[in-house]
Amino acid sequence: MSLVVVGTVAFDAIETPFGKTDKILGGAATYIGIAAGKLNVDARIVSVVGGDFPQEYLDLMNNFGIDTDGIKVIPEGKTFFWAGRYHNDMNSRDTLVTDLNVLADFDPVLPESYKDSNFLMLGNLTPQIQQRVIEQFPVRPRLIVMDTMNYWMNTAWDDLLKVIGMVDVLTINDEEARQLSGEYSLIRAARKIIAMGPKYLVIKKGEHGALLFNNESVFFAPALPLEEVFDPTGAGDTFAGGFIGYLAKTGDISFENMKRAIIFGSAMASFTVEKFGTEGLQAINNGDLNDRIRQFSQLVQFDIELD
Amino acid sequence: MSLVVVGTVAFDAIETPFGKTDKILGGAATYIGIAAGKLNVDARIVSVVGGDFPQEYLDLMNNFGIDTDGIKVIPEGKTFFWAGRYHNDMNSRDTLVTDLNVLADFDPVLPESYKDSNFLMLGNLTPQIQQRVIEQFPVRPRLIVMDTMNYWMNTAWDDLLKVIGMVDVLTINDEEARQLSGEYSLIRAARKIIAMGPKYLVIKKGEHGALLFNNESVFFAPALPLEEVFDPTGAGDTFAGGFIGYLAKTGDISFENMKRAIIFGSAMASFTVEKFGTEGLQAINNGDLNDRIRQFSQLVQFDIELD
Repeated sequence: MSLVVVGTVAFDAIETPFGKTDKILGGAATYIGIAAGKLNVDARIVSVVGGDFPQEYLDLMNNFGIDTDGIKVIPEGKTFFWAGRYHNDMNSRDTLVTDLNVLADFDPVLPESYKDSNFLMLGNLTPQIQQRVIEQFPVRPRLIVMDTMNYWMNTAWDDLLKVIGMVDVLTINDEEARQLSGEYSLIRAARKIIAMGPKYLVIKKGEHGALLFNNESVFFAPALPLEEVFDPTGAGDTFAGGFIGYLAKTGDISFENMKRAIIFGSAMASFTVEKFGTEGLQAINNGDLNDRIRQFSQLVQFDIELD
Repeated sequence: MSLVVVGTVAFDAIETPFGKTDKILGGAATYIGIAAGKLNVDARIVSVVGGDFPQEYLDLMNNFGIDTDGIKVIPEGKTFFWAGRYHNDMNSRDTLVTDLNVLADFDPVLPESYKDSNFLMLGNLTPQIQQRVIEQFPVRPRLIVMDTMNYWMNTAWDDLLKVIGMVDVLTINDEEARQLSGEYSLIRAARKIIAMGPKYLVIKKGEHGALLFNNESVFFAPALPLEEVFDPTGAGDTFAGGFIGYLAKTGDISFENMKRAIIFGSAMASFTVEKFGTEGLQAINNGDLNDRIRQFSQLVQFDIELD
């Protein structure tokens, strides 16, 4: 199965209590693409970069099996740049710089060669851009997964609701689920959000795991407690990439298989946070991933015989 | 097996976004005792109340099979009173009143009839009081579980470390585990805390579940996502009561059985938060509890075949 990923390809500069980086490879589509590539999925990125984006980074993506034909290069422009500093607790961060650069005028164009893709991952972007991508498919993809954030709830409510109504799976964090639904209870929040259109809701809780809902069931996957939490940047995108990557790889979009996809996404994200940027994710092989999935099984496994 | 519970028996006045109560029955030992009583464990409370504490509340505890001989009544004194108001997110609260009253001079005396007990639960109290209780046992109980909080880390560090070194299981929240160990990673925090004496550490994360550590393994239990979260007061104490209650009932203190005990504690706590005070916990029967334990199994169950 083939997967189109729409999202940012960027430079990030990151400071954590454990160190800092210069401008390194970042962006949602980058993490999503590499995660999917690690699962041998034919991932195709739609994005935009400036003339300052090194060929070396495009080569790197190609080496992970990612099709970069849909990454438009604007020679006279500069690549989207984000700089942030994590607090000591690593759960919160300050954004130091957001230079949209070429992203400000991003008008995504789906290459002809991408149009037969049956999975679509909409990374966090302006809802209008997400919508324009969906509309370029001659046949609706089998599964559309959409990420978004509270910023669009505050600034583009109507546009956001429109796209939410067009997708199959929405991924947001717990605070955003509460804001979007106006409900404190995540059970009630999920019910309301599913009534807005998506058949599935994934609530990402960072170090506290993730919840998967459909209209009748709920599944919870913890985050693996880790020895090293070095840099959380990209963890949510890696999770999304592992999730949709696993679904695209298996071609099975049942609730039972989505549970497995959540575990794959969580396992992949656990590698991302152990190193700066994409470094941790880049280095893993199948054996590493399988070991970590076994750790997830052990972490939650219990056996109670009830009367 | 019999269980001694040392902790507060109190009046609570609670405000949540959903309503408020007058002075109602509260206190850590109350929740712990009722939870253990629900599991048919012979629970024996050591505490202190004033002349204003109604006989009706003592009768209520006795009806749950709780031995109240160790609750000293000081006729001229007033019962410990706590009043608090929860914020809209229910994760944080303001303390409005803390009247220690008779608790200020609490000097626990273990009745002769309690001294053969083989399980001991030390509710959150001054570390020195917790220590004095341990020292009154002619034979050390088979299992000592201790709850504490950041307040004692800030005000009674040396006393706290001394008691921590005398117990088998310590229960604290994630922020407290980080403060006690000086480590951000909970894996590292657990290792350091276990080196302080306890063989087991339980990290309570409220709506995000609970972690159980020994020196080589880790187990995670989620909190059940609930339709109604009405009043979190007593959830942590109910969890502790269900945990040690299950261990006392089964007489099995292996790591595998502690995993089951964590699930029982989590399931019981889920009833407490659905109503004000002890009301939710009081109402449950075996069938309710078993149903909820099945929900825990379903919530985390997944099945992945790895290559």
